[in-house]
Amino acid sequence: MDITSGNLANPKISSVRDTSTLFEVCVDSIESAVNAIKGGADRLELCSALLTGGLTPSTSLLREVKKIAENKPVFVMIRLRDGDYCYTDKEIEIMKMELIDLKSCGADGFVFGLLKQDGTIDAKGCSELLSMAFPLPCTFHKAFDVADVDIQTLVQLGFKRVLTSGKRKNITKGITEIKTLIAQSGGKIIILPGGGITKNNICTIVKETGAKEIHGSFSLAKHSDMLNKAVDFSSDFRQGGYFTRTVTSQELLGEAKLLVQKSINHSF
Amino acid sequence: MDITSGNLANPKISSVRDTSTLFEVCVDSIESAVNAIKGGADRLELCSALLTGGLTPSTSLLREVKKIAENKPVFVMIRLRDGDYCYTDKEIEIMKMELIDLKSCGADGFVFGLLKQDGTIDAKGCSELLSMAFPLPCTFHKAFDVADVDIQTLVQLGFKRVLTSGKRKNITKGITEIKTLIAQSGGKIIILPGGGITKNNICTIVKETGAKEIHGSFSLAKHSDMLNKAVDFSSDFRQGGYFTRTVTSQELLGEAKLLVQKSINHSF
Repeated sequence: MDITSGNLANPKISSVRDTSTLFEVCVDSIESAVNAIKGGADRLELCSALLTGGLTPSTSLLREVKKIAENKPVFVMIRLRDGDYCYTDKEIEIMKMELIDLKSCGADGFVFGLLKQDGTIDAKGCSELLSMAFPLPCTFHKAFDVADVDIQTLVQLGFKRVLTSGKRKNITKGITEIKTLIAQSGGKIIILPGGGITKNNICTIVKETGAKEIHGSFSLAKHSDMLNKAVDFSSDFRQGGYFTRTVTSQELLGEAKLLVQKSINHSF
Repeated sequence: MDITSGNLANPKISSVRDTSTLFEVCVDSIESAVNAIKGGADRLELCSALLTGGLTPSTSLLREVKKIAENKPVFVMIRLRDGDYCYTDKEIEIMKMELIDLKSCGADGFVFGLLKQDGTIDAKGCSELLSMAFPLPCTFHKAFDVADVDIQTLVQLGFKRVLTSGKRKNITKGITEIKTLIAQSGGKIIILPGGGITKNNICTIVKETGAKEIHGSFSLAKHSDMLNKAVDFSSDFRQGGYFTRTVTSQELLGEAKLLVQKSINHSF
């Protein structure tokens, strides 16, 4: 990398390599996956429909993403519908089948979260999914942010990570909470800040929380190349729209990585 | 049915049974599928993420929906991402694999649409998917409404149906176009009006277009039963939201069916 080349004799600078931040990039298309890998993603979180917060992707998409992932781990979202994280028994059965299918297609880990109606964790449902995923690592996703769940419970259940915006609407307002969670974790579970990370706040988040891994989409609106945009059309698409979708940007991800690396260097 | 019982001796009334309208209900959850079947759906269109216009559902969801579908056909959406219908070769390869997986899990038909950048049909891509789906029937979905494609081309390719809101933003404004399409079809392809059908406009659409099949979600916003709704949470969900999702209503579907049946009766 430019910022370290020629400085290997300097122990402070060379140690940057040990303090680098791991970038997990959430993607919901093959195009975003390709861009994320090119941009330097260290791990992918594969979903469909990120517009809804992320749903279970197809096994076919996973198989293709694995082909281009260059041995970077691909963690897979298990969430069969939008809305809350309080599932019926039948829904949990479907999610179990989805997990088994995706495990057999090369998933390197899973991301899910199941709650009870009172906001506490559905320990039984989570345990069942965790045991089916074993020995692959599982992340408890942002259901955590609406949950009455403590870190120790997640550790005891066997989750390796928790994805959180610090239980706050805006992740920059959740920095104190994330810092507290990292302290509480005692290194037994990885706290993965995510949700609203941008190049404008990423350095602050990494430096102030001490998080070793971060999660984001690093995406931009991409306008359709279709030539007939003037047609009177909206259909029943209630959002997003036909002519624009959100795609991970190789450049934006690269820029964010560089900013973090520079920021860490400057703190030495 | 209540409205026909006791009238079998009257040839005009008894013939209602032959003029009944087929209701295809699009669903994106097991809960919506159950409600659709209970409400009298004649066929399901199974998707995920209807908020984005519908994406390919998981094989696990299809398997469970087939169990409760009471022998009603389940047509399956093949659309691997949101946005436009102009796909890369790699994306078409993934959709082919999705179709094969879903066919092996009991799909009764498929719903897709592939366009070229100039808005004409991607005949090669469509033909490949059609041949893989064979002998199951395929519907060209609402890509039609932004496409420069005529009905005869769809017939020649082998589509059995086309889902359309009459190339207009509001289906009630597309009634004339749908009527024209039905005339052009010459009975060789079924014109399936959909997109914005409500109990307020369904009778007008059915009567004025003469459509024999209609398509809708017949859904209502359903609020989460979670008890902790006060939490400061929005995460990066750009729409829909955590506490509300859209679910097919058995009652709403039943009401719409009754309205149409009464409307047809009254026209005799």
